[in-house]
Amino acid sequence: MREVAVIGIGQTKIDEHWDKSLRELAGFAVLDAVKDAGLNQVDALYVGNMMSSSANHQSQLGAYIADWVGLRYAESFKLESACSSGAAAFRTALLAVASGAIDTAVALGVEKMTDSPGNEITAELATAADADWEITQGISFVALNALIMRRYMYEYGWTKTDFAPFSINAHANGVHNPNARFRKAITEKQYLDAGMVADPINLMDASPVGDGAAAVVMVPLEKIGTSSAYPVVKIIGSSAATDSMAVHDRKDPLWLRAAEISSRKAYNQAGIGPDDIDLFELHDAFSIMAALSLEASGFADRGTGPKLALAGEIHPGGKIPIATRGGLKARGHPVGATGMYQLVEVVEQLRHQATGTQVENARIGMAQNIGGSGSNIITHILQRV
Amino acid sequence: MREVAVIGIGQTKIDEHWDKSLRELAGFAVLDAVKDAGLNQVDALYVGNMMSSSANHQSQLGAYIADWVGLRYAESFKLESACSSGAAAFRTALLAVASGAIDTAVALGVEKMTDSPGNEITAELATAADADWEITQGISFVALNALIMRRYMYEYGWTKTDFAPFSINAHANGVHNPNARFRKAITEKQYLDAGMVADPINLMDASPVGDGAAAVVMVPLEKIGTSSAYPVVKIIGSSAATDSMAVHDRKDPLWLRAAEISSRKAYNQAGIGPDDIDLFELHDAFSIMAALSLEASGFADRGTGPKLALAGEIHPGGKIPIATRGGLKARGHPVGATGMYQLVEVVEQLRHQATGTQVENARIGMAQNIGGSGSNIITHILQRV
Repeated sequence: MREVAVIGIGQTKIDEHWDKSLRELAGFAVLDAVKDAGLNQVDALYVGNMMSSSANHQSQLGAYIADWVGLRYAESFKLESACSSGAAAFRTALLAVASGAIDTAVALGVEKMTDSPGNEITAELATAADADWEITQGISFVALNALIMRRYMYEYGWTKTDFAPFSINAHANGVHNPNARFRKAITEKQYLDAGMVADPINLMDASPVGDGAAAVVMVPLEKIGTSSAYPVVKIIGSSAATDSMAVHDRKDPLWLRAAEISSRKAYNQAGIGPDDIDLFELHDAFSIMAALSLEASGFADRGTGPKLALAGEIHPGGKIPIATRGGLKARGHPVGATGMYQLVEVVEQLRHQATGTQVENARIGMAQNIGGSGSNIITHILQRV
Repeated sequence: MREVAVIGIGQTKIDEHWDKSLRELAGFAVLDAVKDAGLNQVDALYVGNMMSSSANHQSQLGAYIADWVGLRYAESFKLESACSSGAAAFRTALLAVASGAIDTAVALGVEKMTDSPGNEITAELATAADADWEITQGISFVALNALIMRRYMYEYGWTKTDFAPFSINAHANGVHNPNARFRKAITEKQYLDAGMVADPINLMDASPVGDGAAAVVMVPLEKIGTSSAYPVVKIIGSSAATDSMAVHDRKDPLWLRAAEISSRKAYNQAGIGPDDIDLFELHDAFSIMAALSLEASGFADRGTGPKLALAGEIHPGGKIPIATRGGLKARGHPVGATGMYQLVEVVEQLRHQATGTQVENARIGMAQNIGGSGSNIITHILQRV
C-alpha cells in the first residue's frame, strides 16, 4: 500500500449561491485544488454528495462535473453515505491511489441545497435516518438529535447552558474563515435566547445548511518532487465504520460506537493516540454531536464532553482545538460537502495557513465526518511531513 | 497492488418484488454471496445503487443494509454513476482489497423500482442525462437513445429488422436463467410487431426495469486456500472512463469513446485483446447500445455491430457470445444493480455453472456497464484460475 499525500486544496464560500449551478460550484473547487497542486491533469475524480438526485434532479455527478473541469474521459463516480459522503469520497480516492491503480486523484464534496424548497430539504435530510423504522414515525432528523441531547442531559446532569461553549467557539473561529457561512461571534446570552427548533436543540445548537464545494488533490508520497509550493501533508490514518441506522437499535444511544471504532483504527494505523492530535475537525452538526464525538474518540471520558468545552480546552490554544475554521455550526453544513471542508481545513492548519485561528506548530490533525445520527462515521488523520 | 479474486456470488430473481423491501432484497443477495464464499464475516460492503434516495426515500444504503446482514460496524458506502453504479461498486471493492486496506469485501448492486409510480421512475431515470442541457428540453432517456439509433440507421444503412437478432438472442438465453425477469423466447415477427416506445425503439429494443440485487465476495488471491468449493475467478482488468454527459456534446454521437478507453485499458492490464474474450456481458439497455458496445470494445468495425448479430456470432456458440443469461433485455435492468448481475453472470460462466447457455470451456469473460447514454462506462475482465 503506497503512502498518499494531499498536495492541493480548493473550496468555495458556503452560502446561498443562487447564481451558480451545482456544476459550477463543484467545478470551481476542483479547479482551485488542481491549480493549488500545480497540476494540469488528474486521473480520477471521486465526488461526495448526498442529495443531487432529488434536490437537483441530477444523478451521476461524476461525468457531470468531470467534463466541465476538463476531465472528460477520466474515471469518476459519486460516493454517498448521507452527511459523511465527503469523507467517503476522500477515503475512496485514498484507496485508489494507495492501490496503485490511480496516480492522481481529486476527492470532491459538493452540495447545492438552496434551490430546493425548505420542506423538501427537510424531507431529503430525513432520508439519512431509517425510512422503515424512524421516518415513518414522523420524526425529523433534528428531532432525533434532540432526543439524544435530552437523554444525555438527563443521564449526566448537564444543563442547556453547558453546551453554549461549543457554539461560541465555533462562531468565534468562523469570524476568521473567509469561506464560512457565518462570520459573527456570539455571546452566551445570544446562544440561550435563540429560537427553539426541537427542544432542547435551538438555532445555536444546529448547523446551517447551504451550498458549497471543497476538494483536494492526492498523489503517492513517493512521486512528490522537491518543488512543492506548500508543506506536504500525508494521510497516516483512515478508517470507516457503520452502526445501526435507527438510534433506538443501539444498546447505548449516547455512545458513538462507529466513532470509537474508526478513530481507534486510525490511531493504530498512525501509531499514535488522542494526545498526539493537535486539532480535531469534528462533526458538530448539533452541539450534542460535538460532545459525543470528543468522548467516543478518546478526548474525554463518557458523559464529560461539555467539561472540556467549559474549561476552554476546545479553543485554538486549548488542549484539543475543534471547529477551528468555524465547524459545521459557523462554517456551515452543505451535507455531502462537509467532510471535504473538514479535511481541507485540517490541511490548512498543517500547512500553517489558518489565519486568525492557527493552532501553534500544528503537526497532526484529525477529521471525523458523521453520516446519519452516528450510523456512518469516517475518521482521517493527517500529518505534516 | 494485490491480485483479487471473486469467491462468492449471490443474486435474486429480477421481478416486481412487492413483498420485499429494498433492505431485504439487497440482504438476501449479500447473504447468498457470503454463504457461497464459505465465509461468515466480511470487512466492508460497497453498495451500487442509483435511485434509492428518491424512489425509496432512503439514503446511506451502506449502513442500512450492512446492519441487516449482520455487518453492523463494517465499512460501507454507496456508489452511484446512474446505470453503471453496480460496476462502480465492484471497482471500488476491488481497489479497496487491492490496496491492502480491506481483506474481504462485498460488492453489491441493488435497485427497487416497482414501489414508485411509473411517471416518477421515468423522471428518475432521466436524472442520468444532463439536467441542464438535455432534460430541460423535455427529452426522456429512451428518446435520447432513439435519436442515436435513428442516426445510426441513417449513417450505416441498417434497417429496423437488422436489430432483431440482439433481442432474439437475449430472450433465447434468458429462458435458461432462473433469475431472469423474462424467460420466454421471441420470434422476429414478435420483435417487429412490438409496440413503439420512442421511434425506432420499440418494446423489444428496450430493457425492462424491475427490482433486483446481485453481489460478489472478493478476497486477495494470495489468501485463498486450496479448499475453495468452486473454481476461483480472478480479476485481470478493470477500468472506468467518462464521456460528456450530453450526447450532443460529443464529436461522434455514434461512438462510445468511454467504452473504447475503458476496454482498451482493461485489455492492456490483462495483456490480452478482444480475440481472447470468451464471452462479453455488455449493456444492452437498448439494442442500439449492444451494437455500439461491440464496436467500441473492438469486436466489430465501426457501423458493423448488427452484422455480427445477423451472422449468429453473438449466441453462446458464436465468436463473441453476449447477453448469455438474458442480458438487460431479458434478464432485466434494475438500473443500479445491473452491473453486478453482469459480473455475477461472468463468474457463473467461468465456473461453468451457466446451465443451458454455457459457453464451452469459457476461461476469460468481460463485463461492461454503461451509465447514462455512454457517459460513464466501466469494463472488467475476469479469468478462471
